[in-house]
Amino acid sequence: MPDCMAIVSGGMDSVTMLHQLVKVEGRQPAVITFRYGQKHDKEIRFAQVQALLLGCDQHLVLDLSHLRPLFAHSALVDRDVPVPDATVVRGDPQPPTYVPNRNMIFLALAAAYAETHDVTDIYYGAQSHDLYGYWDTTPEFVARLKKVYNLNRQTPIEIKAPLVNCSKSDILRLGLELGVNYAQTWSCYEGDEVACGRCPTCVERLQAFAALGMVDPLPYD
Amino acid sequence: MPDCMAIVSGGMDSVTMLHQLVKVEGRQPAVITFRYGQKHDKEIRFAQVQALLLGCDQHLVLDLSHLRPLFAHSALVDRDVPVPDATVVRGDPQPPTYVPNRNMIFLALAAAYAETHDVTDIYYGAQSHDLYGYWDTTPEFVARLKKVYNLNRQTPIEIKAPLVNCSKSDILRLGLELGVNYAQTWSCYEGDEVACGRCPTCVERLQAFAALGMVDPLPYD
Repeated sequence: MPDCMAIVSGGMDSVTMLHQLVKVEGRQPAVITFRYGQKHDKEIRFAQVQALLLGCDQHLVLDLSHLRPLFAHSALVDRDVPVPDATVVRGDPQPPTYVPNRNMIFLALAAAYAETHDVTDIYYGAQSHDLYGYWDTTPEFVARLKKVYNLNRQTPIEIKAPLVNCSKSDILRLGLELGVNYAQTWSCYEGDEVACGRCPTCVERLQAFAALGMVDPLPYD
Repeated sequence: MPDCMAIVSGGMDSVTMLHQLVKVEGRQPAVITFRYGQKHDKEIRFAQVQALLLGCDQHLVLDLSHLRPLFAHSALVDRDVPVPDATVVRGDPQPPTYVPNRNMIFLALAAAYAETHDVTDIYYGAQSHDLYGYWDTTPEFVARLKKVYNLNRQTPIEIKAPLVNCSKSDILRLGLELGVNYAQTWSCYEGDEVACGRCPTCVERLQAFAALGMVDPLPYD
């Protein structure tokens, strides 16, 4: 039986968090991943691979792709909105890659599942020190959301965001120590055969590898 | 174009709120209703009727019924869990009729839609002074959730819960003044041909009518 939940996208942050949870903390997370119409839905396959490699028996892939109209105009979902280059989003308080309220939805659905399965801890791979910023990955967001869930009278849901104060290279360093195979993760927002190397998440990822003097094992355009 | 959103189940509270919004406040809400595997999904038809009667052109009925496993063990969803009589739930901090984190999920999805459509106000028909209690319909829940949404850097989502301090008979009185036809609303958790008259929401509804010296126009078992 799982003793906690982990929201895992298949990207570097949540995959590293999952390895930390299983290998260091000895937890047995139920993994939850969302299909929400993202262009880079190939990330889901990597979430599945990582969960299997770590022996997480319970992996729930929730299909929300029919809710895509809720996320219209986001460059991650809307086929008419191009994924911007990293240079475009720098300093934008709400960049076009933001998906409206997506993380709140994911956390709310995970919390329902947790309540139903008598699990209280939900691990969320938020990382706030991005090149760009999202309001719903900040320590303050996590702190305020916790105060909402504290009101639950029976299942005291705890949102845990262990990486919220880590930089991308901190996360990479941690993951390499834990033996994470980053060839089995996906970040690029484009979701093409190879990573674009230009979108915000590619650039951030490449910079993290460069900061450690390493080469990303993923193929790039 | 809608200027706000209203979450409407088809029950007395949210329908009354919708009438108030349109008839008194002159707002043009986009109405949002959820199918989540509830036994009483016939309430959705009444939400649709009321939205049509009030001229709300935009009515989104979101189908979440494939997420029913998230809500397992709730008497409102799980066919193996009977809907309890009102006498059973009185004073229970988390009665069997509670649906795990349902309201948070509804509000999160409504907020995504609001953001995408440049609307900020989301009306939520929470009513806290029930015979039974849910943590996610209290004034404190609304207050804390507001503080989360305040962090959004571009679309300052406002959760409005105008009925959160009203009793059921207050709501009924208001609705009658506004000309709500309560024969076109549905409360009973059983969702059968006629209302059961015994479940918590039936009893609360019947007591509200009795308190005003009136008879509920709905047929009862």
